[in-house]
Amino acid sequence: MGTFVLVHGAWHDGSAWDQTIRHLGSQGHPAFAPTMAGHGKSQPRNVDHRKCTDSIVRAIVERGLRDIILVGHSFGGTVVSKVAEQIPERIRRLVFLNAFVLQDGHSLVDEIPPSHAALFDRLSQESGDHTVMVPFSIWRESFVNDADLETARRTYGQLSPEPYQPCQDKLDLKKFYSLDTPRSFLNATEDIALPPGEWGWHPRMSARLGVYRLVAMPGSHEVMYTNPAGLAQKLIEAGRD
Amino acid sequence: MGTFVLVHGAWHDGSAWDQTIRHLGSQGHPAFAPTMAGHGKSQPRNVDHRKCTDSIVRAIVERGLRDIILVGHSFGGTVVSKVAEQIPERIRRLVFLNAFVLQDGHSLVDEIPPSHAALFDRLSQESGDHTVMVPFSIWRESFVNDADLETARRTYGQLSPEPYQPCQDKLDLKKFYSLDTPRSFLNATEDIALPPGEWGWHPRMSARLGVYRLVAMPGSHEVMYTNPAGLAQKLIEAGRD
Amino acid sequence: MGTFVLVHGAWHDGSAWDQTIRHLGSQGHPAFAPTMAGHGKSQPRNVDHRKCTDSIVRAIVERGLRDIILVGHSFGGTVVSKVAEQIPERIRRLVFLNAFVLQDGHSLVDEIPPSHAALFDRLSQESGDHTVMVPFSIWRESFVNDADLETARRTYGQLSPEPYQPCQDKLDLKKFYSLDTPRSFLNATEDIALPPGEWGWHPRMSARLGVYRLVAMPGSHEVMYTNPAGLAQKLIEAGRD
Repeated sequence: MGTFVLVHGAWHDGSAWDQTIRHLGSQGHPAFAPTMAGHGKSQPRNVDHRKCTDSIVRAIVERGLRDIILVGHSFGGTVVSKVAEQIPERIRRLVFLNAFVLQDGHSLVDEIPPSHAALFDRLSQESGDHTVMVPFSIWRESFVNDADLETARRTYGQLSPEPYQPCQDKLDLKKFYSLDTPRSFLNATEDIALPPGEWGWHPRMSARLGVYRLVAMPGSHEVMYTNPAGLAQKLIEAGRD
Repeated sequence: MGTFVLVHGAWHDGSAWDQTIRHLGSQGHPAFAPTMAGHGKSQPRNVDHRKCTDSIVRAIVERGLRDIILVGHSFGGTVVSKVAEQIPERIRRLVFLNAFVLQDGHSLVDEIPPSHAALFDRLSQESGDHTVMVPFSIWRESFVNDADLETARRTYGQLSPEPYQPCQDKLDLKKFYSLDTPRSFLNATEDIALPPGEWGWHPRMSARLGVYRLVAMPGSHEVMYTNPAGLAQKLIEAGRD
Repeated sequence: MGTFVLVHGAWHDGSAWDQTIRHLGSQGHPAFAPTMAGHGKSQPRNVDHRKCTDSIVRAIVERGLRDIILVGHSFGGTVVSKVAEQIPERIRRLVFLNAFVLQDGHSLVDEIPPSHAALFDRLSQESGDHTVMVPFSIWRESFVNDADLETARRTYGQLSPEPYQPCQDKLDLKKFYSLDTPRSFLNATEDIALPPGEWGWHPRMSARLGVYRLVAMPGSHEVMYTNPAGLAQKLIEAGRD
């Protein structure tokens, strides 16, 4: 296998994958988790989706990585889709971990329930800097529903406000949908960050991948925090040829 | 954590939770399982939904219980919803275990498939005392589908006819839907007491809870019989802050 | 319990069940896996659905088997439905393992997504002998998604082209739908051979069984290859009274 490149979602930065990288490494799989532009504590937030994508492409190219298993989590799914358009020759397989697979021409905000979009719109307007922070009560119940309260608090402390522009940018994904890069969808079965059913991750997002491999594991949207060992194992199953 | 109060569903009484209480206790969690009015062997059946609710409220208040994790199973979901309206200050969290979360103004019968409602209507008319008893063949296949035949028979012997009026009473749930009590939905993933899909427990019932915590476990509608140790563990995960 | 009769799906023959039979046997359950007419390496392909059914009936009757747990996998579901019409008195229970439960008057092709049907139509026309072979890329991603590449290749080598006529034959299933033979649906939860959701195995197929028992296990459409020990255990749970 190649190198895992792990692309975080909203509010996270590359450090979210620290434990997962350790478990992948202990099984002989090198892994690398760059932080997107506009993300991470104390970084400037004035980015759009293009800058997020470009920062990941640059991190991969600068390191000379090839034969990549490119993993996108949540919002990160929109980024790995665009990364795959730019450097398809470096990517051995795409893995979407409860991640957005947007329809061509859509933004992330176009594909979440209207009540979620309204909440994010309001929060971004109140933020003063066009960012959105997930409220703790929602984080605790809907994102780390498989964690104890201490873990919920500790991990919440690792988050930082999400620049909202990349979530609003409508993406041209025609090239993505023409690629024949192998792809997997890894579904954590208790993930309710998107409400199950009509608006759920699976099979709504996964079905858009055409021929894809499904891998499932128990857990919430945040298995990199609540079960990094199990996640590493399932990433290997999702990422292998 | 507080005290678990476990509210049984149709055909059951408080003794259905005996093994679950033992497992909760062995992990340091006190638990109490009252029997609703009109339920239990040899009790008179002439009750309505209000009497069911009042009997649970009385059991809680008489014992002076506070900081309650109030768990409702199946029909018990309709009762804990109304209990929460009466004594919200005593309830730390609501847990719906494959339970009805009725829409305001609906009865339980309004929210089951028409073929089920027709069967219950017929059985109640034939009963002579406005009760319904689940036929053994349905119990064995659709309620304890994860049990062996001996367990299916033994547990069927613990059931008693369900007063039908509480299932027909339309409930005013406006106050319930205004409460901000934290709530969880615990889903046993092989439960087919309601048919999966359009009429299924999850996400049909769970989605009505607004912001809620999802916890899942393998098993049938009757995990208190078929896997009480696993149920106790998942109740702790569903019930913690 | 009785004897398990295991009926394979498309592209397979009776040898697909070799390991499952070994595990069933080690737990004291005799099992037998006939190969349908028109299936197996080097067998002539000019069969229709009736010949497939008759060959299984003959295999059962010749061996004098009674008290059968009749298991159908995938396409095999259409065959066990018709076998049950012919020899209901020999069948103790039907088990559908991610199998087709066709509507009366339908063919298998009528009940798969239009894009799948179009692919099969094209492949059968190109075959020269009215057969269809699943492409390896689809086998690897959508059928044995829980296998490693070596297992995917090895098992693909055990397949042979499927006669297409039996998939196109429209079946009269009125008698099947009048039978009261107990029935179970065993669902491998990561099966994407049919796309989950609108076209998925469960609950679309299972719901047609009326009162049925649901049993679930992790895994792909091909758990007889990827987890025969787990499959044997779940067949026992699905097959018991």
